[in-house]
Amino acid sequence: MNGAESVVRSLHAAGVEVCFANPGTSEMQFVDALDRTRLLRCVLGLFEGVVTGAADGYARMAGKPGVSLLHLAPGLANAGANLHNARKARTPMITLVGDHAVRHRGYDAPLTADVAGAAAPFADWVDTARSSESFAAQAMEAYAAATGHPGQGAVLIAPADLGWDEGGVEAGAPAATGPAAVDTDAVERARAALAGGERTVILAGGSALEDHQTLARLQGIAAATGAVIMAPTSNRRIERGGGRADIRRLPYPIDLALETLAPFTRAILVETQPPVAFFAYPGKPSLLLPEACEIVTLAGIDGDGPGAIAALADIVGAAPRTETRVSRPEMPGAGPITPEALAAALAHALPEGAIVVDESITAGRALYDATSDAAETSWLAITGGAIGIGPPLATGAAVACPDRPVIAMQADGSAMYTIQALWTQAREGLNVTTVILSNRAYEILKGELRAVGSNPGPDALAMLNLDRPELDFVSLARGMGVPGRRVEDARELMEAIRTAASEPGPFLIEAAIAG
Amino acid sequence: MNGAESVVRSLHAAGVEVCFANPGTSEMQFVDALDRTRLLRCVLGLFEGVVTGAADGYARMAGKPGVSLLHLAPGLANAGANLHNARKARTPMITLVGDHAVRHRGYDAPLTADVAGAAAPFADWVDTARSSESFAAQAMEAYAAATGHPGQGAVLIAPADLGWDEGGVEAGAPAATGPAAVDTDAVERARAALAGGERTVILAGGSALEDHQTLARLQGIAAATGAVIMAPTSNRRIERGGGRADIRRLPYPIDLALETLAPFTRAILVETQPPVAFFAYPGKPSLLLPEACEIVTLAGIDGDGPGAIAALADIVGAAPRTETRVSRPEMPGAGPITPEALAAALAHALPEGAIVVDESITAGRALYDATSDAAETSWLAITGGAIGIGPPLATGAAVACPDRPVIAMQADGSAMYTIQALWTQAREGLNVTTVILSNRAYEILKGELRAVGSNPGPDALAMLNLDRPELDFVSLARGMGVPGRRVEDARELMEAIRTAASEPGPFLIEAAIAG
Repeated sequence: MNGAESVVRSLHAAGVEVCFANPGTSEMQFVDALDRTRLLRCVLGLFEGVVTGAADGYARMAGKPGVSLLHLAPGLANAGANLHNARKARTPMITLVGDHAVRHRGYDAPLTADVAGAAAPFADWVDTARSSESFAAQAMEAYAAATGHPGQGAVLIAPADLGWDEGGVEAGAPAATGPAAVDTDAVERARAALAGGERTVILAGGSALEDHQTLARLQGIAAATGAVIMAPTSNRRIERGGGRADIRRLPYPIDLALETLAPFTRAILVETQPPVAFFAYPGKPSLLLPEACEIVTLAGIDGDGPGAIAALADIVGAAPRTETRVSRPEMPGAGPITPEALAAALAHALPEGAIVVDESITAGRALYDATSDAAETSWLAITGGAIGIGPPLATGAAVACPDRPVIAMQADGSAMYTIQALWTQAREGLNVTTVILSNRAYEILKGELRAVGSNPGPDALAMLNLDRPELDFVSLARGMGVPGRRVEDARELMEAIRTAASEPGPFLIEAAIAG
Repeated sequence: MNGAESVVRSLHAAGVEVCFANPGTSEMQFVDALDRTRLLRCVLGLFEGVVTGAADGYARMAGKPGVSLLHLAPGLANAGANLHNARKARTPMITLVGDHAVRHRGYDAPLTADVAGAAAPFADWVDTARSSESFAAQAMEAYAAATGHPGQGAVLIAPADLGWDEGGVEAGAPAATGPAAVDTDAVERARAALAGGERTVILAGGSALEDHQTLARLQGIAAATGAVIMAPTSNRRIERGGGRADIRRLPYPIDLALETLAPFTRAILVETQPPVAFFAYPGKPSLLLPEACEIVTLAGIDGDGPGAIAALADIVGAAPRTETRVSRPEMPGAGPITPEALAAALAHALPEGAIVVDESITAGRALYDATSDAAETSWLAITGGAIGIGPPLATGAAVACPDRPVIAMQADGSAMYTIQALWTQAREGLNVTTVILSNRAYEILKGELRAVGSNPGPDALAMLNLDRPELDFVSLARGMGVPGRRVEDARELMEAIRTAASEPGPFLIEAAIAG
């Protein structure tokens, strides 16, 4: 058994079922091993950012690590933005990246570059295979690193010759680190904070958002104590809808975020850090909680959020509650697709059990609240701010959950970073409905430009508008084997989403956003 | 004057005319400064790999550095593959990448990552702006680093607040390093090597390929001494055609490269290193010259190739010669587009003064030799092996040379990494004719898989074939505002290239490759 086969067999034995791949010459021994063993489903992406974004979406839904196979330092760089997003989501990710054979490294061949250096900024754990004998054991260390709590990004560099060489030894995964135990002192501090009569916000992230029971407990705590419950702006996955408890998110725009948090004198943190602005702006703070706000960490990033919340609910005597926050907007009538009409269309079109992928940026500002009272869904969002996550994230989620329709609410500018994912959706026959929110601009950047005090002139607007030429997403989709249509009416949009989600295979809807 | 404006003014004063950009929030002060000063032409790319690939193509043709503006570590990662290609080409590149404001760095905001770390594997020179006062001077150090001989990739990290802050001071560029002077001892060693009656190859790269006179001198040396002249497989730019001297390239496939170099007992190197295989293969050497081959370095990578060649021609008494190597193939008749017919079609379609961008990979194997006797062209190739350079390289070359038609011979699989470049071509009205060589496979990888001893089965072939679904490049182009057509006949292809190249604006031809 060669090194590559030992890795494939060990990953499979640990429970890995899918490998997202964009291989090159230095990974041919893995292609060969995957081919001979037929143990893993191989999902091909035409671009590496598709591969790692799909691995992320898969892992968020499958409860298994997302495994990718990439080609050398440039391939890893192409994958970097979505490795970054996955890392900020704390998604468990195992990325195998081929390198030149050890003996070939010193000669400055065209593709030679520092693979470990390219990995470091976008991974929590990086290692290089040392021998065909140790290769599988090192892959299993990567597995353990990735799947420990909280999830991590692990990159294992695979010199080509160690994959070819015989002597591979199948290996089991070492035990992964579980979450830190519930800290009873922290629970008591949180109880005291809630009892003090101060205005208190509970900010809960990570795994606390991923089960209905924990969210119901949080809602119960809010009802019992008067605290406000809130999630970070961007999260790996939120379970919501279907009449269950639903959690408010901290808004993105800095002024709105500051205003939202201004009333609070106490904050209790669960699997999240003190909230920070996406960017710094002249004359505005970086940290979003008021300076005088007292912070109690109920569970750290590495903690057991659900356990700590259960303990807190217990100690404050709060029963779980499950009511929606915002009632469903009226069904949209015929008319232009304003952001509000878009949100209403989604709220009424969402089928039970759908997965929503949210890279909607500006035009999607109303989507989240409007769907509080909609069908039961899993809500996945861009987590690291690196745009171009949506199409691949939807692809991977659909691979993980073939029986659940995926609806991707996708900003147009961001879609163009990883539009190649549509081809993988067609190839794999995935039920992904991509709704392109076509405002033909990097609309968010216009706000950002004003936020730094600029009054944009023609050259600035030329760098923020995407209207010359207009992008025709229906043609782009057709070019990759995905049928689609453009819709300019809100009622038609609702019906188009319903139809597409109820039919197998991918579909793209270009929604012309008004205003 | 704020820091951003001081940088823009200093770059302009040094001769920079174009900025290729994909900015985000942390670069808004640059967008503002570019807008207010209107000193540079801003060319927007929808993806960062388009931006740096276009900057590379621009620099290869303009004789000026390629300047890019990017957004934080994920944006730099997206740009990494084409920064890698530019670095291997030794193209002068200045990449400005925004970072969070200094005060914001410590808070782990969503987009926080190690920008300098992400830059290091793909740059020769990396620095971070220290203050608004020093910002322009540091940008000019980047300018000098990039434009010294041989060209380098320089990355300057721009914390957002240093761009906003007042106190910017316009700066001039320090003197850039010129090429090392001609080494008369090396010239004498080369003369002695040529006089010894051994079979000698002269391998010439870098700036030696960029003027007709130097190539004619090389051809004269070959005629006078019996040496064989050869260029590396991939080069920044070769000037050729129009009845001038033309240089053979070392072939890509390892067996063919070894066979080509096997006869030589002496090698003279000019602005290139000892040739190395793209990849290591089991049982085959990494270095391509025979082990016993004696190597004489006439001019190092940092040397003055043209000067050294002139001195050598002088000492061996060789007059310049200008004959083509390979006669033009017959005009293609009606029939399927085999690689040979494709090559003949290009040879007869090329207009005088065209720029050829060659990312043709397998299907383009015959293109280069078939155009030895064609019209005068500049030939630009993928240099670092990171696929996805073609569409942006063509874009940048067309920005540099608006009066010269650009013909991009483009493999289909590689095109999909940076297909977004078509939009920029439409936006800027560039005369780029993209010929997609549609074989619906990563054809080269099938050869690579066999080279490592595998007999590919269905899973392996599924990762190397792009036929499920078929990519429809005409629809993709239409989606980005570029007209196009699919062609299945060789004669029609020739005519289509001629027509497209003679008309303004971009056009895409999907050529169905047979066999």
